[in-house]
Amino acid sequence: MFDSQFESAEMTAALSRPRLIARLLAFESALAQAQGELGLIPAGAAHSIVAACADPKLPESIDLDGASIAGNAAIPFVRQLTERLHRQQRDASAWVHYGATSQDAIDTSVMLSLRDAFVLIARDLDTLRATLAVLAKLHVRTVMPARTLLQQAAPTTFGFKVASWLAALDDSARRMRDTTFTVQLGGPVGTLALAGDKAQALIERVAAILDLASPSIAWHTSRERIVAIGATLATLTGQLGKIARDVALEMQTEVGELVESSAPGKGGSSAMPHKRNPVDSLVAIAASQITPQLAAGLLTAMMQEHERGVGGWHAEFVLLPRLCHLTHRATSAVLSVATGLHVDADRMRANIGLTAGLLSAANLAAALSATLGRERAHDVVQTLSRTALAEHKHLRDIAQRDLPKLGVTHAPATITAAFDIDRELDAAQARALHYLDHRDHTNG
Amino acid sequence: MFDSQFESAEMTAALSRPRLIARLLAFESALAQAQGELGLIPAGAAHSIVAACADPKLPESIDLDGASIAGNAAIPFVRQLTERLHRQQRDASAWVHYGATSQDAIDTSVMLSLRDAFVLIARDLDTLRATLAVLAKLHVRTVMPARTLLQQAAPTTFGFKVASWLAALDDSARRMRDTTFTVQLGGPVGTLALAGDKAQALIERVAAILDLASPSIAWHTSRERIVAIGATLATLTGQLGKIARDVALEMQTEVGELVESSAPGKGGSSAMPHKRNPVDSLVAIAASQITPQLAAGLLTAMMQEHERGVGGWHAEFVLLPRLCHLTHRATSAVLSVATGLHVDADRMRANIGLTAGLLSAANLAAALSATLGRERAHDVVQTLSRTALAEHKHLRDIAQRDLPKLGVTHAPATITAAFDIDRELDAAQARALHYLDHRDHTNG
Amino acid sequence: MFDSQFESAEMTAALSRPRLIARLLAFESALAQAQGELGLIPAGAAHSIVAACADPKLPESIDLDGASIAGNAAIPFVRQLTERLHRQQRDASAWVHYGATSQDAIDTSVMLSLRDAFVLIARDLDTLRATLAVLAKLHVRTVMPARTLLQQAAPTTFGFKVASWLAALDDSARRMRDTTFTVQLGGPVGTLALAGDKAQALIERVAAILDLASPSIAWHTSRERIVAIGATLATLTGQLGKIARDVALEMQTEVGELVESSAPGKGGSSAMPHKRNPVDSLVAIAASQITPQLAAGLLTAMMQEHERGVGGWHAEFVLLPRLCHLTHRATSAVLSVATGLHVDADRMRANIGLTAGLLSAANLAAALSATLGRERAHDVVQTLSRTALAEHKHLRDIAQRDLPKLGVTHAPATITAAFDIDRELDAAQARALHYLDHRDHTNG
Amino acid sequence: MFDSQFESAEMTAALSRPRLIARLLAFESALAQAQGELGLIPAGAAHSIVAACADPKLPESIDLDGASIAGNAAIPFVRQLTERLHRQQRDASAWVHYGATSQDAIDTSVMLSLRDAFVLIARDLDTLRATLAVLAKLHVRTVMPARTLLQQAAPTTFGFKVASWLAALDDSARRMRDTTFTVQLGGPVGTLALAGDKAQALIERVAAILDLASPSIAWHTSRERIVAIGATLATLTGQLGKIARDVALEMQTEVGELVESSAPGKGGSSAMPHKRNPVDSLVAIAASQITPQLAAGLLTAMMQEHERGVGGWHAEFVLLPRLCHLTHRATSAVLSVATGLHVDADRMRANIGLTAGLLSAANLAAALSATLGRERAHDVVQTLSRTALAEHKHLRDIAQRDLPKLGVTHAPATITAAFDIDRELDAAQARALHYLDHRDHTNG
Repeated sequence: MFDSQFESAEMTAALSRPRLIARLLAFESALAQAQGELGLIPAGAAHSIVAACADPKLPESIDLDGASIAGNAAIPFVRQLTERLHRQQRDASAWVHYGATSQDAIDTSVMLSLRDAFVLIARDLDTLRATLAVLAKLHVRTVMPARTLLQQAAPTTFGFKVASWLAALDDSARRMRDTTFTVQLGGPVGTLALAGDKAQALIERVAAILDLASPSIAWHTSRERIVAIGATLATLTGQLGKIARDVALEMQTEVGELVESSAPGKGGSSAMPHKRNPVDSLVAIAASQITPQLAAGLLTAMMQEHERGVGGWHAEFVLLPRLCHLTHRATSAVLSVATGLHVDADRMRANIGLTAGLLSAANLAAALSATLGRERAHDVVQTLSRTALAEHKHLRDIAQRDLPKLGVTHAPATITAAFDIDRELDAAQARALHYLDHRDHTNG
Repeated sequence: MFDSQFESAEMTAALSRPRLIARLLAFESALAQAQGELGLIPAGAAHSIVAACADPKLPESIDLDGASIAGNAAIPFVRQLTERLHRQQRDASAWVHYGATSQDAIDTSVMLSLRDAFVLIARDLDTLRATLAVLAKLHVRTVMPARTLLQQAAPTTFGFKVASWLAALDDSARRMRDTTFTVQLGGPVGTLALAGDKAQALIERVAAILDLASPSIAWHTSRERIVAIGATLATLTGQLGKIARDVALEMQTEVGELVESSAPGKGGSSAMPHKRNPVDSLVAIAASQITPQLAAGLLTAMMQEHERGVGGWHAEFVLLPRLCHLTHRATSAVLSVATGLHVDADRMRANIGLTAGLLSAANLAAALSATLGRERAHDVVQTLSRTALAEHKHLRDIAQRDLPKLGVTHAPATITAAFDIDRELDAAQARALHYLDHRDHTNG
Repeated sequence: MFDSQFESAEMTAALSRPRLIARLLAFESALAQAQGELGLIPAGAAHSIVAACADPKLPESIDLDGASIAGNAAIPFVRQLTERLHRQQRDASAWVHYGATSQDAIDTSVMLSLRDAFVLIARDLDTLRATLAVLAKLHVRTVMPARTLLQQAAPTTFGFKVASWLAALDDSARRMRDTTFTVQLGGPVGTLALAGDKAQALIERVAAILDLASPSIAWHTSRERIVAIGATLATLTGQLGKIARDVALEMQTEVGELVESSAPGKGGSSAMPHKRNPVDSLVAIAASQITPQLAAGLLTAMMQEHERGVGGWHAEFVLLPRLCHLTHRATSAVLSVATGLHVDADRMRANIGLTAGLLSAANLAAALSATLGRERAHDVVQTLSRTALAEHKHLRDIAQRDLPKLGVTHAPATITAAFDIDRELDAAQARALHYLDHRDHTNG
Repeated sequence: MFDSQFESAEMTAALSRPRLIARLLAFESALAQAQGELGLIPAGAAHSIVAACADPKLPESIDLDGASIAGNAAIPFVRQLTERLHRQQRDASAWVHYGATSQDAIDTSVMLSLRDAFVLIARDLDTLRATLAVLAKLHVRTVMPARTLLQQAAPTTFGFKVASWLAALDDSARRMRDTTFTVQLGGPVGTLALAGDKAQALIERVAAILDLASPSIAWHTSRERIVAIGATLATLTGQLGKIARDVALEMQTEVGELVESSAPGKGGSSAMPHKRNPVDSLVAIAASQITPQLAAGLLTAMMQEHERGVGGWHAEFVLLPRLCHLTHRATSAVLSVATGLHVDADRMRANIGLTAGLLSAANLAAALSATLGRERAHDVVQTLSRTALAEHKHLRDIAQRDLPKLGVTHAPATITAAFDIDRELDAAQARALHYLDHRDHTNG
């Protein structure tokens, strides 16, 4: 229902049925190859199976429609693969999928799919991170108001803000890079009985062929690997949602510090021709309201009964592709935001001025603390702030006028220094540069 | 990713892009017709717009690909509709979508889509309810063990169990029947300014043409209607999941009371040729682990800012079709379970016998309470039960043997009566028939 | 962990252990009374049990600590109640909890608890609705910018905005009013076997005594009633979160249209003495990010096995009190916002001015549509808008200057009329009053 | 509401208000100490603050009730600490909480709390893992049916099943061990402006004093650390829920392979004195239906605005303690299951016999594949299986009788070998031992 904004063509291709079947074939091929090498099946049969699986026409011609009645997609897949082989190499057909179970083929195929999905996401994430790193450096001293609880709080720089965004994404990139994709191979009940004392060797060899990690025991109903991948995707989307929300807030008419890139027809309104809507940001914001639920679905589905679950396993089939699509779209949408972002440094500076010195109130309070004590200094500055607000005057002027009345003696330089925002800018710049200089900028 | 089991062809058709566009056209047509009738736009323009929207080729030929860049699907839709009209009836084109906003068209189209989805679901739900009602009557006295915390507890009948399932589904059918689908019409900011003092009349007329309910104020960012529909779907799926889990538990090898219908290739295993897997039940079980999260997504998305949300609204586009698909598949899967269900009444009766009288322990305790008091009777029966278990004997025999030793005098008939399960069957039958005779069996 | 902001003293009292025990006693008392009346237990025993349950010292003196080992709280409760009675009225003690099961007592007690929780919530909700109704009328013509996707869109009034908030809350109030709280009474396996042919009469009598609804079949594992109550609470909290977010957005330094009530120490900052943080709003915003998940938990827990679930039922014990607390706190927090709200009408009007006529762009486009056609008018106005933005001039002035250049002939009055925002105000006022005059303002 | 089963006394103590205040004091003390060492505040003031924070009476005497009106708990905490110091060491009081913000104190305190919670959980988890390791070895050759989709599938051993459970928990233990708890220190807007060029040194020194990790940039609104901790807890609870569900399924009356430990009053029923309910298992099952939602709440709350969020941050206060409590209770409940578990090896073996050879069907099919080809062998064995089921005879006998009729020639030894389950037991034993011998059994 109007959800095309939330799928990317690339991810759709990566998770298409032919690609899934190609990955099932890769599993069966690796299994046969390894079993042939280990003498578990005849070398000739192994060779025939590997050759059959390499047929480029197979992914398009195998039909998984029987999945619903059979219970899962591996059943019609294996039957059709076997039938084809049976026509060509009757002897070999007995050894297709030998000793394995449907879940071995599907879980392994899912892992290969997720790895491919990660590649797509990581590619855009890396470009986004590189873009943000440039943006952070460019604006390392671009002054703007920091905001807490949506109230202006104190001066910061846009570069510091972007560096903070980047730090979160760097964390996700590291988490993605550290993600292990693991082969599944346990046979009908996890014990890989038909491999006898070559079970461990077989698992490791299949894993090596597919360039996957090798598990130390079958994980048919131990789903922490799936859950961890889901959490990684949902966490990244959450970080992107936070960035996108910040952008949308700064794009508000009354704030006007940022604008998404402009393009003909972009972000317009059917009724309001002047608007510049945050149409890229909204994709990430929307995605980040859905992916937490999908991650919860994976956690809920962990309670898989005995050696293969009823329903819990199958729920993953619905949840995982949604997570991949939404995370990819959130990433590419924020990448689009970042690459086309118009930063209005004048407006940022002007917004600081809106509060007529109030953003330096914390500094003033700190400066007065030495003589007044912390609590009294805080109270005095609160009084001054209210007066400034009420009289629409600058806090510095009110301080200079009213402090004597309040019985507070002070050096004039104290006040002047408190309203010098250079210290804040220096600090924001230093913290941003500290991060940028020490970050692990390895690509994902 | 192998999730084709979780979509139905009918729902896919009902939510297809051409059908969505047809519903957008229905909105624009109704809007123009009502505005023409009320004199808000020229009658000729209204007529032309209505005629244009009726063109059966339009739903296939309009292209929504611009949604992503524009921010929503209504923008490219309205542009293309206007362009077409512009070529044919230049004057009329000025009045397309007059006074309305994108969200008016989309929300109304979503409501029409949900209504159509409800029709599909309700149709299968009604057949399912009728099937269960027959099944409940057929087995109104088929004895079986009731189970609490997965332990056999006391005798019941399969008819009572089915009547309980049915009661839940009847509740959902009523909830679906009572669901209101409401037109959205508020213009750019909800005030429908271009309609002047005819706003309310216009809303009501458009609602009447589309056979939708009329809201008393625009609900662009008041999403309780959407949330309620989501909760209704998720609740139904939860009920279906509960039924499916009961069936899967009764299909366990060790229980064997129920079997899903058999068909060539159905519920087999790639490795274990003898299995009869609960392949229909698993669809509902899987669905019921996902729909709660989708309902939570709709609730999370309620915080839509001001007069149109950034992201919250758009999240619904992803969540709603998933809810429709999963609920429909859960319904049709449980319908398939119910229509083909093999009930093994002999096994049910045999399972009662497994506990050698223990299921009548509560009766015995109740019978002894009158003389021993509640707590002592409970303790005595617990002692007898443990002895029976330890000696692998029937509780009745142990009671007759050991009660005198425990200093409990009793009439022999008391014991005999306590082990007569007719009272339980009478009660189960009576409660089932009470429900079946008084239920509101109106179709959804 | 610092979560005291999310519990109210009243709700804590309403859900305290003594109050829960009092409700368990109310159940046992009603059960005995009804059984006595129907001749199911001796009249004298019934009388004694009713008298014992009325002992005001019991709720404080019964100890539920055995719940964990027994599996639920009703087991130690019934044991202690029976022991007390046994000491006083030995004969009567045999008839305590007669024919009932733990879940009957607990579910009924939970329903009574939820009804009490609804009373607390509805009381604050009613006051809030009354407050908003007054506020809406007071500001029915207070002009302010409506905002879509966080961009100023067109003029509206604050009264219309408040009426929209109110409409959502009225819907929840109606939903709460229509909520049915239902007795649970089915005995060990739902068939109420010990009541024989008086089962239905017994259920109805117990329900009548407790002023609860009577179910037509036991609902031990049919949890739609619980789920519906959870959804009602989560929906209300979602609505409150939306209002609170709108307020927090309008309290932004750069927007400044609203301020929460002021009090000594309220909404301050440990570091920034001038801030006025939205500390009431944040409670509702936080709550509305949690309650969707709790509602999802209830939906997830629906899959309760057979005649009593393992874990699903028990999960409700954790989820329901959180939902009650969070919904109550969200309600009282928004009530606090509403009653103390400072509305800065001057700032609202000034904010409209920020966009120098752009908010009337849609009007101008509509006015030009008649001669230019919809799409060309839209394009022309977009061009004018960009010029106005670039030159920092009022759109009206740019239109008057540039329309001739663009070859658009027009009556000067057309332009003037397009920038007259009275039509918008009239419309906003009319829609607000329509709602306020026709709403169902019955208290919850 | 009857949720006392879901809190542990130890966790309640660890998260009590005095303990939270003690952790806030630890933060302020570390801050002052580090600032004194770095010359950011006077050494004397630092000394006084450290001394004041060490007062053992403070945690009990500070009152956080003002949190609700102030917006967070750090505000009344800092005020009271300052007041106390002011009375004793007026000069020092100006330097309390110097340069820090409320969120610095609270986030750091939350991190210290979570670390303490992890200690409690890890302690029980380690004992559980050690217990399961012993159990797995003890039953490494205890034969039982493996079950897929709740159907008996093939023989396995209980030791292999336990090793699989253990592998999941070992993964969580590793994840917990690898969890980093990070100090928060950024001052009002994250830039730690008052520390000037000593910011990084200050952060690292405070982290060192508290034995926490040091962040490279403030993480006030980058919540991936919190989310990761939540996901770790929810994943563990999901694993425990899976184990508990397996146990509850094996405790079914009809399965009878496992029983939870017995104790007076444990797992009884108020109505059915013979029952042995899975009362420990149900705690973990219930918990695992709630924790996914709490983890989703943390993910949802990630969208924290600008430099401090409105509501998102505060939602964590409600979610985190629930996660700690539920995970701890799930862990201790499954520990109680494991330590007291009665394993009925005879019943396990008897359950294998229920299917009269069908569990060896896969073996038979594999044996026949060599001559018949995979698909035909599968079909033949399916036919034989159905005959065996229909005639209530052993599959081996049917195979010997019917294979010749089906035109299948075979060596008699092939059939005999197929029904020898030693190969399965060898495989299960080998896989279990492989895991047990190679696992990382480091304690958490």
